[in-house]
Amino acid sequence: MAILKVYGTAISTCTSRVLACLYEMGMGSDFELMEVNVMAREQKHPSYLSTKNPFGQVPAFEDGDLTIFESRAINRYIVTKYKEVGPNLLRLDNIKESAMVDVWLEVESQNFNPPISIIVYQILVRPKFGGTADEKLVEANVEKLEKVLDVYEERLSKSEYLAGDFYSLADLNHIPYTYYLLKTSKASLITSRPHVKAWWENITSRPAFNKIAEGLSLGG
Amino acid sequence: MAILKVYGTAISTCTSRVLACLYEMGMGSDFELMEVNVMAREQKHPSYLSTKNPFGQVPAFEDGDLTIFESRAINRYIVTKYKEVGPNLLRLDNIKESAMVDVWLEVESQNFNPPISIIVYQILVRPKFGGTADEKLVEANVEKLEKVLDVYEERLSKSEYLAGDFYSLADLNHIPYTYYLLKTSKASLITSRPHVKAWWENITSRPAFNKIAEGLSLGG
Repeated sequence: MAILKVYGTAISTCTSRVLACLYEMGMGSDFELMEVNVMAREQKHPSYLSTKNPFGQVPAFEDGDLTIFESRAINRYIVTKYKEVGPNLLRLDNIKESAMVDVWLEVESQNFNPPISIIVYQILVRPKFGGTADEKLVEANVEKLEKVLDVYEERLSKSEYLAGDFYSLADLNHIPYTYYLLKTSKASLITSRPHVKAWWENITSRPAFNKIAEGLSLGG
Repeated sequence: MAILKVYGTAISTCTSRVLACLYEMGMGSDFELMEVNVMAREQKHPSYLSTKNPFGQVPAFEDGDLTIFESRAINRYIVTKYKEVGPNLLRLDNIKESAMVDVWLEVESQNFNPPISIIVYQILVRPKFGGTADEKLVEANVEKLEKVLDVYEERLSKSEYLAGDFYSLADLNHIPYTYYLLKTSKASLITSRPHVKAWWENITSRPAFNKIAEGLSLGG
């Protein structure tokens, strides 16, 4: 029996963020994905709310008697708990490096995620439910994301990865939404910026990416 | 000369989040607030962008040759660096407790901050620039925040603080926006929920709160 349980579904960006971390940390054989049928809104059922995540979102995560939620908090837990067996994705032994990882983790969470999640939702998710993208909303968020990615381009011209010359959780947490963005008509946000494009090719050449890419099946 | 420098302004929620953490950690005499005139958009000047924060936001933080930004990342750094001298706001010596702190840090960042920041901006900031609040936008975000605070109410009926029966950075990071919300016509979002109200009174009875409250002068 797997010691770790991920409650969620592979098509979800936040679930996939946790799966990418587990694979990266070498824990690919030590967890079980407990499928939550989000189309049937199982994440809103009283039993899920009371025992997994009171906010009714995927993923949730169990390690023995500990249950936690929020993908970025789960990933921090996984990296901290398994720091002896997997790569040092939070640089916990070096306070200056770990501060830089934390800065770029927050940049992903505060600056990158808000616009990219709206763009991907509008272009890839709404059509699945019979809707169409709100073009004005998409364009407003493309404009925001362009400004954010201009800073990334400059940053990545000076260091190989976001937090420095080492791969970290800050890079990993970007993977699911960036992968979905590349399936849309707005892919050039990434591909037109040489250093961002090279960074993306670099971080997705790692084996953990191949293990989650197939599951991220929105947009075909 | 102060060893630590905070670039920002006390009226800003994100600057104030860092100041609250410095006071809470007992570092009130060890930093200098380097005033950034955000009304004059000094945070967008090329020298600020190139040396402090490429995203043009306050605050930024310097400790010797280390410069970082993003208030939540700065606070994590301060708590980690001064864990021997101040309170254990991240529970770094207990992986289960620190996981719960991280969960509620992410809840603040992902669920609480987006709606409350829009409400406060519309009601307190726009009038300062001659505008008026977009009532429809305010109401949509009040509805979102109500759902979030319903979960807080339930949570705080079971534990004294968000992450458990101990004060943590997860509580502290909520202070600036909650304080501003209480100055608006939407204060009952907090005061009508008994456990949320008691939690707020509890966390603002700490000395660190009094040291930042005066600076949070939006809305009088």
